[in-house]
Amino acid sequence: MTPPPSPTPPAPAPPADLLITGCTALTHGPDGEIVFVDDAVIVVRDGVIASVTAADPAGTTATPKAPVAAEHIDARGTVALPGLINCHTHTPMVALRGLAEDLPAHAWFNDWIWPIESNLTERTVGLGARLACAEMIRGGVTTFADHYFAMDTVADVTEESGLRAVLGQAYFSSQGPDGRAASLDFALRRRGAADGRVTTCLAPHAPYTVDDTDLAATAELAREHGLLVHIHAAENREQTENSLARHGRTPIEVLERAGLLDVDLLIAHATGLDPARDLPALRRSGGRVAVASAPRGYLKFGWDTTPVRTLREAGVPVGLATDGAASNNTLDVWESMTLTALVQKHAENDPTWLTARQALDHATSQSARAVGLGREAGSLAEGRRADIILVDLSGPHTQPVHDLAATLVHSARSADVRTTIVDGRVLMRDRELLTLDVRETVRELGELLPELVDRSHGRRVQEYEG
Amino acid sequence: MTPPPSPTPPAPAPPADLLITGCTALTHGPDGEIVFVDDAVIVVRDGVIASVTAADPAGTTATPKAPVAAEHIDARGTVALPGLINCHTHTPMVALRGLAEDLPAHAWFNDWIWPIESNLTERTVGLGARLACAEMIRGGVTTFADHYFAMDTVADVTEESGLRAVLGQAYFSSQGPDGRAASLDFALRRRGAADGRVTTCLAPHAPYTVDDTDLAATAELAREHGLLVHIHAAENREQTENSLARHGRTPIEVLERAGLLDVDLLIAHATGLDPARDLPALRRSGGRVAVASAPRGYLKFGWDTTPVRTLREAGVPVGLATDGAASNNTLDVWESMTLTALVQKHAENDPTWLTARQALDHATSQSARAVGLGREAGSLAEGRRADIILVDLSGPHTQPVHDLAATLVHSARSADVRTTIVDGRVLMRDRELLTLDVRETVRELGELLPELVDRSHGRRVQEYEG
Repeated sequence: MTPPPSPTPPAPAPPADLLITGCTALTHGPDGEIVFVDDAVIVVRDGVIASVTAADPAGTTATPKAPVAAEHIDARGTVALPGLINCHTHTPMVALRGLAEDLPAHAWFNDWIWPIESNLTERTVGLGARLACAEMIRGGVTTFADHYFAMDTVADVTEESGLRAVLGQAYFSSQGPDGRAASLDFALRRRGAADGRVTTCLAPHAPYTVDDTDLAATAELAREHGLLVHIHAAENREQTENSLARHGRTPIEVLERAGLLDVDLLIAHATGLDPARDLPALRRSGGRVAVASAPRGYLKFGWDTTPVRTLREAGVPVGLATDGAASNNTLDVWESMTLTALVQKHAENDPTWLTARQALDHATSQSARAVGLGREAGSLAEGRRADIILVDLSGPHTQPVHDLAATLVHSARSADVRTTIVDGRVLMRDRELLTLDVRETVRELGELLPELVDRSHGRRVQEYEG
Repeated sequence: MTPPPSPTPPAPAPPADLLITGCTALTHGPDGEIVFVDDAVIVVRDGVIASVTAADPAGTTATPKAPVAAEHIDARGTVALPGLINCHTHTPMVALRGLAEDLPAHAWFNDWIWPIESNLTERTVGLGARLACAEMIRGGVTTFADHYFAMDTVADVTEESGLRAVLGQAYFSSQGPDGRAASLDFALRRRGAADGRVTTCLAPHAPYTVDDTDLAATAELAREHGLLVHIHAAENREQTENSLARHGRTPIEVLERAGLLDVDLLIAHATGLDPARDLPALRRSGGRVAVASAPRGYLKFGWDTTPVRTLREAGVPVGLATDGAASNNTLDVWESMTLTALVQKHAENDPTWLTARQALDHATSQSARAVGLGREAGSLAEGRRADIILVDLSGPHTQPVHDLAATLVHSARSADVRTTIVDGRVLMRDRELLTLDVRETVRELGELLPELVDRSHGRRVQEYEG
């Protein structure tokens, strides 16, 4: 047999920084639908995805030669996904994981969390954030949206960890004008830190702890400085009922009146949404309003869950989140994805709703949009930041594969993430963390715990009357 | 300093088969409450737990010398738990994992599962069961209760895997008298197989597929031969409503009328329990009735969940289960434990209910009682079979530990199980499976899948009209 004549060889591609071959890649089609590319080649240059292609596209006779790269990952047997995004958390609270269990929200806040938070130091915040980043990298999270105190320390840890983050310094109106000023100061000072991996936002705590004047001023500052606002609102039905009783407005209507629906706004939880009143308000919004949903904690507190179907129909992106580990016990966004699929079916009493592919859409595109990174993250596509995870499906619990989306959402779990990459830099390789030392962090944190959990002083940072 | 005089050394213990040291052991106190023993020494002889003691009991000046053992596991940094028990599954259905997704129960049964099950061969059953056993060993399951066809093949795989199992050959009345006879034949023939690791039961499918005559005859056989009966009943509310409409009795009342509540009975699911009618029937029962709960699938089908609180109050043990992987997608009993805690809080709208310790009680004692092994398994105690798992809590997602029960139930997961032991034999060491070859099983099963999933023949093993 005479071999067919070789076609003209393509021009050699410039060397890449990172080349990933042999995996199946989760990509998005023109209408945003999930498209799996088998035997994919992912090329990364300067922290950005240069291309995602099939190694042997149908209809070509010659396989394009993969470019030379400084680093090559043979990813056979894995699926490459956009790194997961934790759209709402309080990383330092991992220091309180499992401390206040089996409690209703008011006791959880007033008897445990807010007294203990008055003991926080920059050191405990830093160690908690470091442990949280380690947990997230191991769970395939590449971006987190943090809403807490001592945010400069969290920004430092973000830089050290290699993760991407959207950081906001939390404040209450009980702090006086200083709280809001500090939140703005942080947002302007650390914006673009860690080679651009840190973006910042304003972080008023909630409509029940931040007054109307502060909320309106925050909306004004967001507009002036082009900042996202990240806030808790309508966390549960009781808060909505209390807000109606006190102000004659739902929490969402309080935000609307303050002008916050006309800026870029990330609302955490919204399980207490009042569809009749709140959906018209959300539809009237002139900004980009999104919701972060952390379903594990809602089950644990016995709350309703975020009305994802209603929000989808209103065009509001719903991103996945874990909340803090003091209520959620994990920062496992993969678990949030699985639980979102399961709990939404149950809440709607409809097994055909929130399919595995819809769950993957929330975990990727919708989460990226929710934290204001819709153009930078959430998809394995040319020009996006190279935030990539490789998930091993060779375990007995993920075989056989009849439907890859179902395997990912309903059989795989965060422990199957083998490799985590942010901006093209490998932060975990074959389950080994490369930027953070867990053992040393746990040891140092352990020494500080007795002081941290002391409640004998009788102080608390705030009173929960949500 | 002069050292204190040595006390008289204790008599040397006879050599042990297995010695586990340095772990924290989950044990049960006199009233069945969970008691954690720090720095424990677990001694195993002849497949049985000989002792569980603290290495350095308070109040003694000399540490008892650990006995010489053929095998020693240094288990520092782990928690030893009784092996998990999967109280209701269909192991061969892992071959159909992820095949029929996002469907209501009637379409799932009639359009997918029952047509495909008419293609089953002993070979596909064997490969499916082998993959299932591999998944369960990796997830810390040491005993499973299987309810399916070709049970001789599953018994062979159980023997090969090293697991303990409670096996029942399923039957429908549509099979005529042969179905029931084959179920009895299997139960008598394989009882005590695999060095006693196999116990057997009778396995009528459900009150909606097995008629009253067959159910009554099954009760009679169970009494005559001292066999457990394992059956699906009241799987969802619709089944209970249909049963009332057709027979004027709930599924539980149908079982009662057949005499099945007067024998040892394991009921799968019971999410459609009618408390007003069914609880009096369960309270009148003269046998040992238990329920197996598999909460993941109930969320997925949009069903209610098992009313655990009501059943506890009626004295009915509730064991944890996964159902088959065709509906549940995993055989992860650890996940069932976590979901039971979360979903029960939500279902009862009570965050203080089903605490982490209660969840551990369901995962250990109650599960063992549910499958008829209340004296043999479910507890790390002298005289019980040495079914032990070691769970690694050194990962960032399980640190720090403020409350070990909460860490286990709400932060740890099946992937943290490092070592799985049945009858004192190590089946997985440091995540490496020692009795089963996953890669080869997946390869062989993969070759058979096209034939297995063919539905062009138009046959089905049964019609779902539950």
